[in-house]
Amino acid sequence: MSENIVYVGSKPVMTYVTAILSSFKDSPEVVVKARGRAISTAVDAAEVTRTRFMTDLKPSVIIGTEKLPGTEGGTRNVSFIEINLKKSPEAKTPGA
Amino acid sequence: MSENIVYVGSKPVMTYVTAILSSFKDSPEVVVKARGRAISTAVDAAEVTRTRFMTDLKPSVIIGTEKLPGTEGGTRNVSFIEINLKKSPEAKTPGA
Repeated sequence: MSENIVYVGSKPVMTYVTAILSSFKDSPEVVVKARGRAISTAVDAAEVTRTRFMTDLKPSVIIGTEKLPGTEGGTRNVSFIEINLKKSPEAKTPGA
Repeated sequence: MSENIVYVGSKPVMTYVTAILSSFKDSPEVVVKARGRAISTAVDAAEVTRTRFMTDLKPSVIIGTEKLPGTEGGTRNVSFIEINLKKSPEAKTPGA
């Protein structure tokens, strides 16, 4: 049930755009998640998907802070983003 | 009237945290804006402000794409983020 989540890391943006597009085959809603430096790439991937491929998507965005284990014990705080992309119900179908 | 906008670039995160905190002296609401690679820094700055300094802030986030003039004429698309930080009205005051 978690197949509609795309985790964004340090690969090229188009890698994640492809993953997002293919997740939409199974679901009307895809969540794009990233932490730290990858946050910019996640926004790029969501925006490229939305502006070039699926113009009916509505993004809604959450940001927050996660505690990860630090390298020398203890924890460190890392920012994250979750971009929820949803097909709008009144989407125009080609030729309609 | 635009003094409650903090533009985030490539300086250290704490530079922008300081700018955000000082903008809150004049306004109950501050918007943190960034484009491209600086988006991650903007999220970090908003999250550090919220988790370490002003725990009553509610963030709401918008992402989008802006057309900027390209280096060889034409335009290029750049992602942006706008993080709206708002003091919640039911904020706990110390000692209350």
